[in-house]
Amino acid sequence: MGVPDEQIHPVATGRAAQTVKQHQESQDLVFYSGWFCPYVQRAWIVLEERGISYQYKEVNPYKKEPHFLSINPKGLVPAIEYKGRALYESLIICEFLEDAFPNYEPHILPSDPFDRAIVRLWTDHVNKQIVPANMRLTQAQDPQKQREHLEELNKALRTLVEKVKGPYFLGEQFTLVDVALAPWVVRDWVIAEHRGYSREAVGGGWKEYAAQLESRESVLKTSSDKVHFTEIYARYLRDEAQSEGAKAIRAGRSW
Amino acid sequence: MGVPDEQIHPVATGRAAQTVKQHQESQDLVFYSGWFCPYVQRAWIVLEERGISYQYKEVNPYKKEPHFLSINPKGLVPAIEYKGRALYESLIICEFLEDAFPNYEPHILPSDPFDRAIVRLWTDHVNKQIVPANMRLTQAQDPQKQREHLEELNKALRTLVEKVKGPYFLGEQFTLVDVALAPWVVRDWVIAEHRGYSREAVGGGWKEYAAQLESRESVLKTSSDKVHFTEIYARYLRDEAQSEGAKAIRAGRSW
Ligand SMILES: N[C@@H](CCC(=O)N[C@@H](CS)C(=O)NCC(=O)O)C(=O)O
Ligand SMILES: N[C@@H](CCC(=O)N[C@@H](CS)C(=O)NCC(=O)O)C(=O)O
Repeated sequence: MGVPDEQIHPVATGRAAQTVKQHQESQDLVFYSGWFCPYVQRAWIVLEERGISYQYKEVNPYKKEPHFLSINPKGLVPAIEYKGRALYESLIICEFLEDAFPNYEPHILPSDPFDRAIVRLWTDHVNKQIVPANMRLTQAQDPQKQREHLEELNKALRTLVEKVKGPYFLGEQFTLVDVALAPWVVRDWVIAEHRGYSREAVGGGWKEYAAQLESRESVLKTSSDKVHFTEIYARYLRDEAQSEGAKAIRAGRSW
Repeated sequence: MGVPDEQIHPVATGRAAQTVKQHQESQDLVFYSGWFCPYVQRAWIVLEERGISYQYKEVNPYKKEPHFLSINPKGLVPAIEYKGRALYESLIICEFLEDAFPNYEPHILPSDPFDRAIVRLWTDHVNKQIVPANMRLTQAQDPQKQREHLEELNKALRTLVEKVKGPYFLGEQFTLVDVALAPWVVRDWVIAEHRGYSREAVGGGWKEYAAQLESRESVLKTSSDKVHFTEIYARYLRDEAQSEGAKAIRAGRSW
């Protein structure tokens, strides 16, 4: 309780605030969100892409309020409640939003079973390689370590970029790989301003692909103003953040 | 090349050897296996459960042979080739074997979208919490660390066991959670003999659930004789293994 991570700006701003306003009414699907959270944004992008009705509820996950812990015992956003049952973990929510609404368009998983597997494979790469490398880079204090983690991140991005057909990962269809990655693209100014990262330096069409992701309507509609992120990321950049993610990255764990 | 991990027994034995023998003929689906590998066993269990035709090919993944690297650039088993396209990552192969053979029985994912999500959520727990804790425990040398990792493993097992409906995770249906976990149950004699682990001590019905998993026909049919595992695990127990998994666990990474 009272950890500094609790002191975040309380609500979504900018385009995301408009989206929040449109989703206040009670619905079968309740979306427990933290406006700032990249994992939340994945699920939110899918909700918006597919036109699924949902009620938006802002949660400060650092407060670990009893009602929220009864929804997600891990105390993490995103979480959903659907007809009284609770679910969490961003990518699992995304797949659920595909499975539970099979007649909604567009689909974020291709219909061909092999292509679905390829999408899951590269989503796994985003989750296991790109996101942790980005976090290690953000949290690293030692300049030598920062260089190593930047190289590691660039390498993980290049491995992915080689497979991008364009404009999106799989071609014309916007899929779960793009969904899983977009929130970190939207936030890559943090490592660009503080850790020497540059989209140009990644090469191989990364810059072009990243531009496609950040200009997707569902991504724009779920993005808050940059200014309120500054204080959150300042704590990560000083390696002071006490979130489960920050602690897990320090300890070399998954969370 | 020539890393000691290469010196493993070359082929499956016991029940698994019989299964291998029955799957020598050319098929649309080629299964690249290492008889000893718990990740392989996941995919193998699903192939056997669902009666999918496959051609078994034994690979020593530590040799990183060029043909195998052309199938899986990560150089890891399991991998499959299906009608000329290559796929890897055990859980993604398992889901593919569901998606690509929708009319085969039984299903390892329930039909209800919410139940599917719950199965994926706890499969994720197996993968992110139980398996790494088991590996950390196996590789730990310091007695104090061993005690910590044993406690961590027991905790992760208890969290899961609370949700087990019995006889299997979801009840009567044998699902992906059971598939993902069974290979580590079959191998838990390693930590029982060397790290003070006991099924009894986990409590909450773990012993009974574990017994269900290890006696499932598809698990028995894909299990080799214990004796040939001894030399492999001896290297893990001395923390000398140079596999990608062993190195990743040491470095606090995913692989
Ligand atoms: N693996 C989770 C990660 C979710 C996560 O870490 N969410 C953060 C906010 S970005 C959170 O709720 N943190 C609260 C805490 O760490 O106490 C997912 O993919 O949903
Ligand atoms: N995440 C992978 C892990 C597979 C894995 O680590 N396989 C091991 C054998 S158990 C391997 O191929 N190791 C070769 C090496 O480490 O070089 C999966 O789930 O399939």
